[in-house]
Amino acid sequence: MERIIQNIIETKFAQLFSASHPLMMDCGEQLSSVTVAYETYGELNADADNAILVCHALTGSAHAAGYSSKDPKSIGWWDSFIGEGKPLDTKKYFVVSSNFLGGSYGTTGSHSIDPSTGIRFGMNFPQVTVRDMVRVQKELVTFLGVKKLATVIGGSLGGMQVLEWGVMYPEFVNSIIPIATSAQHSPWAIGLNDLSRQAITNDPEWRDGNYYEHGQPEKGFSLARQIAMMSYRSEKEFAQRFGRDRLSQKGDLPQFNFDKENLFQVESYLRYQGVKLVGRFDANTYLYITRAMDLHDVTVGRGSIDSVLGSITVPALCIGIDSDILYPPSEQREIANRIPKSTYHEIVSPYGHDAFLIEFSQMAKFVQDFLKNLPG
Amino acid sequence: MERIIQNIIETKFAQLFSASHPLMMDCGEQLSSVTVAYETYGELNADADNAILVCHALTGSAHAAGYSSKDPKSIGWWDSFIGEGKPLDTKKYFVVSSNFLGGSYGTTGSHSIDPSTGIRFGMNFPQVTVRDMVRVQKELVTFLGVKKLATVIGGSLGGMQVLEWGVMYPEFVNSIIPIATSAQHSPWAIGLNDLSRQAITNDPEWRDGNYYEHGQPEKGFSLARQIAMMSYRSEKEFAQRFGRDRLSQKGDLPQFNFDKENLFQVESYLRYQGVKLVGRFDANTYLYITRAMDLHDVTVGRGSIDSVLGSITVPALCIGIDSDILYPPSEQREIANRIPKSTYHEIVSPYGHDAFLIEFSQMAKFVQDFLKNLPG
Repeated sequence: MERIIQNIIETKFAQLFSASHPLMMDCGEQLSSVTVAYETYGELNADADNAILVCHALTGSAHAAGYSSKDPKSIGWWDSFIGEGKPLDTKKYFVVSSNFLGGSYGTTGSHSIDPSTGIRFGMNFPQVTVRDMVRVQKELVTFLGVKKLATVIGGSLGGMQVLEWGVMYPEFVNSIIPIATSAQHSPWAIGLNDLSRQAITNDPEWRDGNYYEHGQPEKGFSLARQIAMMSYRSEKEFAQRFGRDRLSQKGDLPQFNFDKENLFQVESYLRYQGVKLVGRFDANTYLYITRAMDLHDVTVGRGSIDSVLGSITVPALCIGIDSDILYPPSEQREIANRIPKSTYHEIVSPYGHDAFLIEFSQMAKFVQDFLKNLPG
Repeated sequence: MERIIQNIIETKFAQLFSASHPLMMDCGEQLSSVTVAYETYGELNADADNAILVCHALTGSAHAAGYSSKDPKSIGWWDSFIGEGKPLDTKKYFVVSSNFLGGSYGTTGSHSIDPSTGIRFGMNFPQVTVRDMVRVQKELVTFLGVKKLATVIGGSLGGMQVLEWGVMYPEFVNSIIPIATSAQHSPWAIGLNDLSRQAITNDPEWRDGNYYEHGQPEKGFSLARQIAMMSYRSEKEFAQRFGRDRLSQKGDLPQFNFDKENLFQVESYLRYQGVKLVGRFDANTYLYITRAMDLHDVTVGRGSIDSVLGSITVPALCIGIDSDILYPPSEQREIANRIPKSTYHEIVSPYGHDAFLIEFSQMAKFVQDFLKNLPG
């Protein structure tokens, strides 16, 4: 019983920034108030230096571990990784997870009410960048009393935030763990994001972003998610998981099946994934955050990729996934090669990019070994 | 001058099948007349056994080599491969190329006028299969007086036809050359096709297939092509070709560029490819032919994959592409392993699946060596 009670986590909200201390965004705009949804697990120590910041990916939320009393079925997206005795051990660490700026789960974003108009920002929200997200995270952990982060960890877009932490606040972090990510979003990943955005904006139900009173652009947003899903998975996994099965196998004879309603299992799976995201995420947010990913480039305004990643002086654990076709292992090795104190490990998995959310035992070993050997 | 005149090729049309000899399709329907658009290069020999059949891919046409007098700028899609002194040497071979059943370039398909209604079939056209395409090709080459095919060659969907030739008409072929293809369309490739189809059918301009009087479903069909393009290329090629360049590079300072109209080069390239296909191909045809690909499975009604590919008794040259993420080299090696008299070669290329249309010198060597060593 005690265990269950421990795991009930309530998402909290912080009001950060002010008119005299606004958030200065890369795009030139300012926000004088930002609501940040966040959760914490474990306790901050007396030196305030045992904190770990967890950065989520594109459609993630602050709810990384435990259960919420509002939705006791909804377990945190990295619960296997965060908790007592787990790789991010809450007996030792104070783990902070927040919904990033522009996100869809409680933090200020395009879905929020614009105080100047009383209606939702929609496409009038300023374009956020990964650096803006990190600025807000810095404000949050400072607000929480943290003096130093033992590490910052995240995969995919989470890893982009991790790299920016290493570059923007080197004195505030003791180490970084970027996983399956980019230092400069590749044309390959940009292309995929743009297809997803077109799927949304092609949908007349998107209404130039003013769909809030009518409901989401379901078909287009579902397709956007399905396009992305293909890049998160792998040919090998699909072959093992779906084969050429149809939703309904008619008869034993392997004849051609011309029934268009009788989808292949893989088609049904993808469509289900599409509909599921439409039910839990905001379409305009998807447009903004994928663009933030495309704009992500640690070199902007700073110098060469070698000099920028070379300026990350703290230890870095870089993790790649052998079957990742979105942020391929070659890209992870390049990042590791450019960070002076880096270690590189590769997850072996058929799951593609999503393996960082699935292959916990491999991840656990890499992260535990790394944290154990960090200089205090 | 003679050279140029030789290369002027006119597409011809054959009316095949009849009420007493209809085309029996896999779906159970019959067609008592099929128009086939085709081109031939070189001369059939006295024994009528020097013919090579070239099978095109998803959006291809019969126009594989030379120039058409109607469009002297439009060179055939495999012109580097077909002609005097080229790998498919027209001094030696009689090369036949036809637009497949259901295609968009002159052969009967969903865009054709339904004689029973006087209007275009649209979505009332029967679902074609790869085997149906091969039945029509067999009728065509017989009509042309061919007694035996020295080889049948094609990549992608063309390769699916090649494999079916090996299984359906083993006495009629002397060898086969399947390139970057499938023996059973994989759930990975089915998933990608379904995303493209959704992009088309999501577009209100598709009008359930009745768009002929209004124009194509441009946005949706363009997106469909762009989704497919990603699977035809590779991360490595995009990185080399586009980097993170924008359409217009503003100033020398590498600042964030928030101009949404100023696309990344890769976005512009993909959109251009999308628009280009909309201008030359029929959307309903795209739906039908991608479905024919998904239904492609050499085992249907026949037996195990080992027994079916094992029944191909003629020599086979199987070619894979190291960077192909759509029909990966592992799949090509599996096909080769199951065909008794097979040789496997792999194209080394950054171009992904499309390499079979690009890497002529590597292809040429594999094909020339294979044809030279064929038993007469």
